[in-house]
Amino acid sequence: MPAQKIFKVAVIGSGNWGTTITKIVAENVLDSPNLFEPRINMWVHDEVINGRKLTDIINTEHENVKYLTGIKLPENIVAVPDLLETVRGADILVFNIPHQFLRNVCRQLAGHVPKHVRAISCLKGLDVSADACVTLSQYITNTLGIHCGALSGANLALEIAQQKYSESTIAYRLPADYIKGQDVDEQVLYYLFHRPYFHVSVVQDVTGVCLAGALKNVIAIAAGFVTGVGWGDNAKAAVMRRGLLEMIQFGTEFFAGDIDPSTFLKESAGVADLITSCAGGRNVRMGTEFAKHNRTKTLKQLEAELLNGQSAQGITTAKEVYEFLEARNALERFPLMVATYNIAFNGLEIKKLPEILGHHWEAKHFKSKL
Amino acid sequence: MPAQKIFKVAVIGSGNWGTTITKIVAENVLDSPNLFEPRINMWVHDEVINGRKLTDIINTEHENVKYLTGIKLPENIVAVPDLLETVRGADILVFNIPHQFLRNVCRQLAGHVPKHVRAISCLKGLDVSADACVTLSQYITNTLGIHCGALSGANLALEIAQQKYSESTIAYRLPADYIKGQDVDEQVLYYLFHRPYFHVSVVQDVTGVCLAGALKNVIAIAAGFVTGVGWGDNAKAAVMRRGLLEMIQFGTEFFAGDIDPSTFLKESAGVADLITSCAGGRNVRMGTEFAKHNRTKTLKQLEAELLNGQSAQGITTAKEVYEFLEARNALERFPLMVATYNIAFNGLEIKKLPEILGHHWEAKHFKSKL
Repeated sequence: MPAQKIFKVAVIGSGNWGTTITKIVAENVLDSPNLFEPRINMWVHDEVINGRKLTDIINTEHENVKYLTGIKLPENIVAVPDLLETVRGADILVFNIPHQFLRNVCRQLAGHVPKHVRAISCLKGLDVSADACVTLSQYITNTLGIHCGALSGANLALEIAQQKYSESTIAYRLPADYIKGQDVDEQVLYYLFHRPYFHVSVVQDVTGVCLAGALKNVIAIAAGFVTGVGWGDNAKAAVMRRGLLEMIQFGTEFFAGDIDPSTFLKESAGVADLITSCAGGRNVRMGTEFAKHNRTKTLKQLEAELLNGQSAQGITTAKEVYEFLEARNALERFPLMVATYNIAFNGLEIKKLPEILGHHWEAKHFKSKL
Repeated sequence: MPAQKIFKVAVIGSGNWGTTITKIVAENVLDSPNLFEPRINMWVHDEVINGRKLTDIINTEHENVKYLTGIKLPENIVAVPDLLETVRGADILVFNIPHQFLRNVCRQLAGHVPKHVRAISCLKGLDVSADACVTLSQYITNTLGIHCGALSGANLALEIAQQKYSESTIAYRLPADYIKGQDVDEQVLYYLFHRPYFHVSVVQDVTGVCLAGALKNVIAIAAGFVTGVGWGDNAKAAVMRRGLLEMIQFGTEFFAGDIDPSTFLKESAGVADLITSCAGGRNVRMGTEFAKHNRTKTLKQLEAELLNGQSAQGITTAKEVYEFLEARNALERFPLMVATYNIAFNGLEIKKLPEILGHHWEAKHFKSKL
């Protein structure tokens, strides 16, 4: 029997979530030297801050002063400005960049990543169009030809960087050519990501975990709508409940056999992430502001004015999901997602939401009022 | 075929939630005169306010100035100070009083309520002891000999009184002697409780709805603990996720065949009520304050100091559930509920919670660390 393989890990991304996940991985590889090499390359899109390169600051001060100020990083993290140098020799690639950079990063990596490399995507999103709905893990597999899982959960990055108790879900299926001890598996991923303050469970439902991470952003916008229009916690919980059911419906209807519906209920990537995202964050904020401005500003205008260059992914996802549903003649089974789109882009009044959602149950049960 | 029966409805209770539900019922009976008599008796434990009886104020000013100030009540609500007079001739009794008054109210009603009367309990709680766990709907049936369902959901009373969009769940099983048109059924209950701003769904899982309404108070206390100790939204969502799973486990383990596990996921009485209760309310507040006072004050002391005579039901339920589980040798399957009890009553440190919860998954999956 060959000796246990020692895996080399690299992280692509160094925003607040990217740096946080690198910190976790860097702490863990030191705890398991029989599984992992100690050095963690972290790809940094370099820039100059007060006359110094960000990569130099990270490598000497051990702090990402741009995206995660005040958090001391392990010294085995090496910030690398060159993407191809970052991934050279790595067995495990952790993707943690904004959604909009993925296409370009994959284009640069194509042809430079051996087939045996395994990847974990920490991106929350989907590649949806009228034609198809592809998870970002699948997108990485499609463009780079490497096996890819996902990490998603109720994960506000700063809380995790501060080592406040958090949970997450890793989704990974063993590849067809898996050899125990020589390849990444559930146990390797557990020791790579689990910390005393960051609890992970490892499941096989990659598609369900990716869907939940993307669709909850649409629900968070709807939760913002009902808050911004002056309703309360009851209305917000109602929207979240309906949203969770439509997320499951979306998964079972369009990915039957490929998802486990219980992921949405049982895992941090499901109901817990929905709860955190609707409690705060960019999407719920955009929904709230949109409602408060009473349709005098579009969501895209508010995003530009308020988010300081960041994006609220749910705005795009709401539109993409609508077009995907429309192309499949499936709009009527997703009244909340459709109403969210119509409020956001078609001038539907938020106050019509109860009528739209309520009609559904009554129509199903009673033919006519007594 | 006999003519459709016209039902007479009375409400027992006039606190903020009792008065709110009476307002809903009173609005609805006027909309469906072919189903309901227009007059709604509401039992009020009378008291004198600024020299006037509360019942007189309600009946002339149409406002419950003690428990629901600023909300105009329909004029077909009649506040009645005598309990037996309140229920005389009623076909449907809606119970909406604090848990601790139920025993005494039922004792007074016993022998004065005909068997054909149907009841709906809006109380959230259980009658739990080491010996048994009885829903309050079952308690009403046991003591009065009448068929009883439940109403529970993500229902902060004031928001509903202000007609802000809300949802709820009604649970009701048809009695064995049901005759269509002459008895209460799903449709009658829908028209009695559903409003444009208060959406109800009617299900059959009375036990599941009652369990959810009681157990979520324990989870809300735990959510308060992790907030009060300085953790964030990730930790709170983690506790809610684990709590939801333990609620389902409790139902399936001790009420197998009598509950539908999907109630906890699909209905307002399940996940939505959990969300609202952990977002705010007395139980989460008590948990937070307990943590902030770092064990220098008991939950009961804080309840007396801060809740102005009201109770945080979860404190009692946490203790009762623990004793019930202990008597069944089932503690290990409910690590969060057990830890909540031990933090509340046995000096367990809140910071131990991740270790207690995390151990569970790892122990189940891996025999030993590599």
